[in-house]
Amino acid sequence: MKSFNYTMLCDFYELTMGNGYFKSGLKDKITYFDLFFRQIPDGGGFAISCGLSQIIEYIRDLHFDKEDIDFLRAKNTFDEGFLEYLAGFKFTGDIYAVPEGTVVFPNEPLIIVRAPAIQAQLVETYLLLIINHQSLIATKANRIARAAQGRAVSEFGSRRAHGADAAIYGARAAGIGGCAATACTVAEQKFGFPATGTMAHSWVQMFDDEYEAFKTYCECYPDSATLLVDTYNVLESGIPNAIRAFNNVLKPKGFRPQGVRIDSGDITYLSKKARKMLDAAGYPDCKIVASNSLDEYIIRDMIFQGARVDLFGVGERLITSRSTPVFGGVYKLCAVEQADDAGGVKIIPKIKISENVTKVTTPHFKKLYRLYDRESGKAIADQLCVYDETIDDSRDLVIFDPDYTWKKKTVGNFYAKELLVPIFKNGELVYDEPSYDEIRAYCAEQVETLWDEIKRFENPHKYYVDLSQKLWNVKAALLF
Amino acid sequence: MKSFNYTMLCDFYELTMGNGYFKSGLKDKITYFDLFFRQIPDGGGFAISCGLSQIIEYIRDLHFDKEDIDFLRAKNTFDEGFLEYLAGFKFTGDIYAVPEGTVVFPNEPLIIVRAPAIQAQLVETYLLLIINHQSLIATKANRIARAAQGRAVSEFGSRRAHGADAAIYGARAAGIGGCAATACTVAEQKFGFPATGTMAHSWVQMFDDEYEAFKTYCECYPDSATLLVDTYNVLESGIPNAIRAFNNVLKPKGFRPQGVRIDSGDITYLSKKARKMLDAAGYPDCKIVASNSLDEYIIRDMIFQGARVDLFGVGERLITSRSTPVFGGVYKLCAVEQADDAGGVKIIPKIKISENVTKVTTPHFKKLYRLYDRESGKAIADQLCVYDETIDDSRDLVIFDPDYTWKKKTVGNFYAKELLVPIFKNGELVYDEPSYDEIRAYCAEQVETLWDEIKRFENPHKYYVDLSQKLWNVKAALLF
Repeated sequence: MKSFNYTMLCDFYELTMGNGYFKSGLKDKITYFDLFFRQIPDGGGFAISCGLSQIIEYIRDLHFDKEDIDFLRAKNTFDEGFLEYLAGFKFTGDIYAVPEGTVVFPNEPLIIVRAPAIQAQLVETYLLLIINHQSLIATKANRIARAAQGRAVSEFGSRRAHGADAAIYGARAAGIGGCAATACTVAEQKFGFPATGTMAHSWVQMFDDEYEAFKTYCECYPDSATLLVDTYNVLESGIPNAIRAFNNVLKPKGFRPQGVRIDSGDITYLSKKARKMLDAAGYPDCKIVASNSLDEYIIRDMIFQGARVDLFGVGERLITSRSTPVFGGVYKLCAVEQADDAGGVKIIPKIKISENVTKVTTPHFKKLYRLYDRESGKAIADQLCVYDETIDDSRDLVIFDPDYTWKKKTVGNFYAKELLVPIFKNGELVYDEPSYDEIRAYCAEQVETLWDEIKRFENPHKYYVDLSQKLWNVKAALLF
Repeated sequence: MKSFNYTMLCDFYELTMGNGYFKSGLKDKITYFDLFFRQIPDGGGFAISCGLSQIIEYIRDLHFDKEDIDFLRAKNTFDEGFLEYLAGFKFTGDIYAVPEGTVVFPNEPLIIVRAPAIQAQLVETYLLLIINHQSLIATKANRIARAAQGRAVSEFGSRRAHGADAAIYGARAAGIGGCAATACTVAEQKFGFPATGTMAHSWVQMFDDEYEAFKTYCECYPDSATLLVDTYNVLESGIPNAIRAFNNVLKPKGFRPQGVRIDSGDITYLSKKARKMLDAAGYPDCKIVASNSLDEYIIRDMIFQGARVDLFGVGERLITSRSTPVFGGVYKLCAVEQADDAGGVKIIPKIKISENVTKVTTPHFKKLYRLYDRESGKAIADQLCVYDETIDDSRDLVIFDPDYTWKKKTVGNFYAKELLVPIFKNGELVYDEPSYDEIRAYCAEQVETLWDEIKRFENPHKYYVDLSQKLWNVKAALLF
């Protein structure tokens, strides 16, 4: 298949600005950019950061091919000197990020890039699109997996994904967020996320009758047959034919059926009836799989109404995060370096003002701490500090609401953990990448550190991301 | 960058079914599948089919690499004979499709695949995901472009797209749907869709003050400077500083400014004020660009309220089709071939019943006609026929509602055009692919053939997709 040089997947203005920095002597100016988001999808209480692995791959591969340079030259927009610079382009900066699977909140950096202006600018589009996509799906998958209350959720959405990458990396993110399996074959091949699947309606239609279709399938897969029972009529035809096939094909060979799948109709009702029929036929271990435009709300309601479903297949509403299909990550300049009088370097914080107060950025090169209660292990709040601050967790800490500063809280008996870890240093990868399974396990642990109040689907308790007094002062000085 | 073999981007059940067909002697059974959709996104009156070019690429490249076979073997699910078959796999069937950019309606095939069962089944996932994605974005882009009433719309969404392909092919689809340009650099490189862009807030922040930033940019790009004027305050700082830069840098060199961009605040209000200030300063030709979570509804409202905007940059709500992020295309078996008594072949129609009546499929190998009024050139209705029927447009035709058959209409003075064209014949490409610009022009023409009533954003007139009497009889015989 045709492949792209992903270095060229950038908004054109990254290049016009790059050329401008080049021409105006800002090429080597060291800049700091924060990648953060402002709103949690679906009005939830937290999000999950995801996609770092693909960003690492991208950063390591950053380069312009000759055909890219030729294409850019033909635009008649860029200086020849800049094009030469691009021809030898490589990333030489530092990147800090929260590990994949980390629970994250609005207005805290998921990634910090410290690099010469052109480099830091160029990577904006790709970093955003990867983090925005995978964090969106991981966050949604986690909601759906939690709605299923311990029942397995399988990702079924490839066919409704926004293109091939959305299917493949969406499956990846769904597994990190909490799905147990996927229908996407290549997601297992590439990430080791187990791919499963049995039959579509076309299999059933291909045969002269439904029983013949089930019988043939059981003969092909005696140890793993999940039969799709809604091609004609679930209770009058599908389940009886499935039981007949189990009796006639599996039983004599000593196999147990794996399951039946219901993909339409009133699944809650049908699953209860089907459960009784399967139990009565001697198949209480035969699982019932449900699919058909499910999401966390429908699954919660199905369980509330006593649906007898063992596994949920979730497609379009997961792979597109249908109810909130945008994860609004942004990438903002927060500081630049400048020579100081003593011949060293100082970091100058930068702010973006906006008439929309929620769009005002938090300036400076920052550290991000999470404060955990020593007794319960639960997360209490996050605190953003200036890069040279350290939280002393051996004594009480007074934190305060950055907007309503009279709202204060004293935190005691806690420990503080830094969330941002170095990924690249001077362009070199310094991060020991966890495996896919490690990321999945880490994400599950992360969600466990949250109080139930934060995990509500609607009206969750607000988790605070505060600023240290020092950082607050820096921001206030730029605002007032 | 790592690339995938897209043949492996299939739901795992395509392979378990394929193996089942192989083992049960159905491998070479000729099947017919329809790809169609059931609901128009956003409650609109029509959709635009898009993505065929990527499907052609995919079909031509269908193959399994050794590493794919090894991976599948390790699943312990497949017969060795089937794996050998896959090792030599290639597509040998026929594909019919409506050309990209065609206006389409629910329940009519956008693609028909006629192929041996395993082949037709295997391509399901990929065909769906490509058509679902690109048709979704083309349809949304067309709504947004129409809302702008002749003003240009530029696609700005890469950073919020669902992964790299969603950005690149989303830009492609947006151009087909009616966007004039994109911010996505690689979309121009690969498709020739013009990429444009100037500056982000970071450019402005990088300098000591806004004027300095504008002045430097105008010096770099005297003939194409669009200045982003909302980093601090549009009317008090942004526009005055832009005018100062135009006066001091461009005017002495004889250049005219290209534009200013407003990305936050009450853009309708700000654009009117900005227009007056620019006009008064002698820059009535300086364009005003608006961006910030726009879509067709906001653009319509802005124009309704007299916004002085010349170009709209539309990002997340276009590239994710935020209000309806799912194009629900499905792929259903509609017929199989079978030896007849005379030693020939007959086509046996197949149906999928559902308790949900809107999910009952229309069986058989079909033709799709569009009926046009000879006088106005406007489309009147579509008619689905059995493959061996031909519409005689030299005389009146009685069409009827397939659900409420007493609703009849006599169509006269019309011509009938077949919409599905052969793309592959016996696995060989037989289609002369149009260029990207031809597809864009064709799409614009297609939309012109619709009455305004179909083009409404809300409550559009329903466009009928009827069945011929012969096809209706086939369906009825399978239903009753």
